[in-house]
Amino acid sequence: MSAATSTLDELKRELGELKDLGRIAALLAWDQQVMMPPAGAAARADQLSTLGRLMHVRSTSPELGKLLDAAEPVAAGLDPDSDDARLVKVARYEFEKEVKVPQDLRAELTRAASESYVAWVEARKNSDFAGFQPYLEKTLELKRRYIECMAPETEPYDALLDEFEQGATAAEIRPIFARLKEALIPLVRAVGSSGAVDDAPLRRRFPIAGLQQIEQQVLARFGFDPDAFRLDPTVHPFETAIAISDIRLTTRYEVEGLESLFSSVHEFGHGLYERQIAPELDSTMLARGASLGWHESQSLLWENLIGRGLPFWERFAPELVDVFPELGSLGAAEIYAIVNKVHPDFIRVEADETTYSLHVILRFELEQEMLSGELPLSELPVAWNQRMHDYLGIEVPEDRLGVLQDVHWGIGSLGYFPTYTLGHLRASQLWQRISRELPDLPEEIGRGEFGSLREWLRENVHRHGMKFMPKELQERVLGGPIDPEPFLARLREKLTGIYGQALIP
Amino acid sequence: MSAATSTLDELKRELGELKDLGRIAALLAWDQQVMMPPAGAAARADQLSTLGRLMHVRSTSPELGKLLDAAEPVAAGLDPDSDDARLVKVARYEFEKEVKVPQDLRAELTRAASESYVAWVEARKNSDFAGFQPYLEKTLELKRRYIECMAPETEPYDALLDEFEQGATAAEIRPIFARLKEALIPLVRAVGSSGAVDDAPLRRRFPIAGLQQIEQQVLARFGFDPDAFRLDPTVHPFETAIAISDIRLTTRYEVEGLESLFSSVHEFGHGLYERQIAPELDSTMLARGASLGWHESQSLLWENLIGRGLPFWERFAPELVDVFPELGSLGAAEIYAIVNKVHPDFIRVEADETTYSLHVILRFELEQEMLSGELPLSELPVAWNQRMHDYLGIEVPEDRLGVLQDVHWGIGSLGYFPTYTLGHLRASQLWQRISRELPDLPEEIGRGEFGSLREWLRENVHRHGMKFMPKELQERVLGGPIDPEPFLARLREKLTGIYGQALIP
Repeated sequence: MSAATSTLDELKRELGELKDLGRIAALLAWDQQVMMPPAGAAARADQLSTLGRLMHVRSTSPELGKLLDAAEPVAAGLDPDSDDARLVKVARYEFEKEVKVPQDLRAELTRAASESYVAWVEARKNSDFAGFQPYLEKTLELKRRYIECMAPETEPYDALLDEFEQGATAAEIRPIFARLKEALIPLVRAVGSSGAVDDAPLRRRFPIAGLQQIEQQVLARFGFDPDAFRLDPTVHPFETAIAISDIRLTTRYEVEGLESLFSSVHEFGHGLYERQIAPELDSTMLARGASLGWHESQSLLWENLIGRGLPFWERFAPELVDVFPELGSLGAAEIYAIVNKVHPDFIRVEADETTYSLHVILRFELEQEMLSGELPLSELPVAWNQRMHDYLGIEVPEDRLGVLQDVHWGIGSLGYFPTYTLGHLRASQLWQRISRELPDLPEEIGRGEFGSLREWLRENVHRHGMKFMPKELQERVLGGPIDPEPFLARLREKLTGIYGQALIP
Repeated sequence: MSAATSTLDELKRELGELKDLGRIAALLAWDQQVMMPPAGAAARADQLSTLGRLMHVRSTSPELGKLLDAAEPVAAGLDPDSDDARLVKVARYEFEKEVKVPQDLRAELTRAASESYVAWVEARKNSDFAGFQPYLEKTLELKRRYIECMAPETEPYDALLDEFEQGATAAEIRPIFARLKEALIPLVRAVGSSGAVDDAPLRRRFPIAGLQQIEQQVLARFGFDPDAFRLDPTVHPFETAIAISDIRLTTRYEVEGLESLFSSVHEFGHGLYERQIAPELDSTMLARGASLGWHESQSLLWENLIGRGLPFWERFAPELVDVFPELGSLGAAEIYAIVNKVHPDFIRVEADETTYSLHVILRFELEQEMLSGELPLSELPVAWNQRMHDYLGIEVPEDRLGVLQDVHWGIGSLGYFPTYTLGHLRASQLWQRISRELPDLPEEIGRGEFGSLREWLRENVHRHGMKFMPKELQERVLGGPIDPEPFLARLREKLTGIYGQALIP
């Protein structure tokens, strides 16, 4: 027993140091985007690259392999759901993934990503897809080699998905996305051009000080504790955890209406997930979210199901009007209608809840076609624009607002987009269960109380960190696979309330 | 030649990674003091300790020793003043120092320092020296063991000095400090209780926004470039360089009068030193100041010789009065007199330029007596208070304001204090040469122009980083050893101007 304990302890010490290095890299990245004076960029790139090399060497070292070999028989004797057994399992999974890819290829992927990013920034600025095409071609070539190393036996796209949502497959996602298309396209067509919701009251720039005030009032109610959280302005909102007791959120204020509030609420959802991971996991690699699709379910739950919900606005509309008296008698129902308005548009990150998934599905389809070679890259912009027409009924005027809009392909991220929609669907599945188990929640929200919701999320989702693979967690919390129906039912009900029965197909 | 180049390149790559790790640790420490939510402290300690272990392993590794062995013959063929030759020399010096101390002793020193710090905080709060005494005893015991490893053949105190000012010796410092005592004690006695300077106009708390405004106006003139510098509020002002193009200054505003401005100016002096190191040194360990005594010469030059100088106030008094109209007609000469007023008091960090060195000398003497065992620790507070009486003519009412005031002994730093006074003396030596070589400087300062001063400092001091040992740099820039006379002459002239000939002994 003592030898067994020391075997596990040795592994945990090594993994703990790796974890620390990962957190240090997260701090460097946060600082780079939030605090660093611009001239520090080149030195920061060196620092991050030194750290990345160190982490790669240690996370693929034969010594770590031996520690895992020694720990596995010990772990086999433990409760399979115990922290230690799970840690050994997840560590083995990640180790095998890391060692499968030769260091040369990793280095090439990193270099290509950074060269591609520079080209993408320039190409987007000039709406010049041809200037970006060779970089995307290179990305695809490297991704094919990566897939060959990782999982030559499965469908190629799955190896890419696995980076962001372990165990997800294109074959499972396809029917779910088909169902969404079937339901969403007619819905968007029916209400997307309706003039029923007048969003003029919120189509303006509010003063930043006021936005910060209402945001503070909201987040304080949600459970943003300054002892363990920060919130800073940046260009692109994000969340990062330096520890489960050191959560950094960012938002941006140079936007119209209440977008900065929704960004903050969204990032708070990510942050609360990591804040409520069980403290005993903090020194291990299990102290993060189960997957991107799980993370996004949390941010979207707070953003869309709480922050764009009617009970929330019944509570906060008066506070908003207090902060911005120019809003006059604007009430909860009006705000609720505006912030849920269906507005088919070019840019994914500005999309409403109803159109958002169609942006994702389009990318999911194109990624597979690019990867297989079925779609020559020269035809990508045309294919993009055609699908924007078919799914959202809009005509893309230039590639800047179309195929060049996202950073993802610019930095060689393929397989990422579907996780956004998995997040939407999971958020609604969770909401269905929460609504059953916390019947008083709407009243609590109306009183500005979020404690029971936080506790529910902690108990059922957050505390586990990534102890369970995304699908295992799905099974445990939701009793079955990803299901689009709760999302569609909720959407239909919401839009019926806002647009009236007659308009909804 | 190609093999030689590659030998050097290999060493430089390894040293470059070590340098990156050091800079990363600096960022973690900066973030901890300036940005981190308080609950992040425990995880941050783990992260810093992981990083410290990594750095220690690599900076003492046999591989580094071999790289140095291989590089030395190559370096011997280079110009001895070339960057590469100097890098090899400094790297060897630091490597030998690192490997001399067994890892166990390093670990014990680190642990004792952190335990001692906790005890010191508590002891200072309660003015309870007895509670701190055992920790100081432990520190002394470990320091004696450290000295035994480092340099058993020299005077014990020198090994401690060497940590902060390489090559400095107690034997050299003693006569310099004796001369200072001889001159300063009568000077303080003569004017310290004089009512000649009425500091009432600045004995108040100014609004922070105004302090920040004047500070920005001053620093912008000095050459604070937001592209490469930050300035943030903290509890204890400090400067740290994350790269020579990423300089972080901090100051504090919860102080009386213009103290926050002087803190910012002081830290700017440190920052400019690192900002102006030759860019080609940035990826090496040479990209830092030559020593603490050199660093302090730069911060004190900006703080005392510029920021408390008459030409500076001729320029900025009107700007100050614009920001704080309540100052009425307060003019340059009055401000100059107030900010140079001699006021013997308990606390070193609040001391004026005239009394400051007496605080340091007292500590230098007591450290040697403690180390040799000549002074039993139980008698330390009495010895402290006696010397405060003898040197500054004041009676210490409690140990909180006496022997327990500084963090240095609390964290096991002995041998640090003298570098403050070496900085004062060097600043005046530099000033003497600068005044000769830049005769128009007072007029330039009056016009708010600091470019020629910055360039002088860059050319003569900053660009070298730590290519030269402190004494070599001293010889190159000042043509001789540390000399107290320029400091004393300047002080006497200044005080004569402020207090009148009759009062000055």
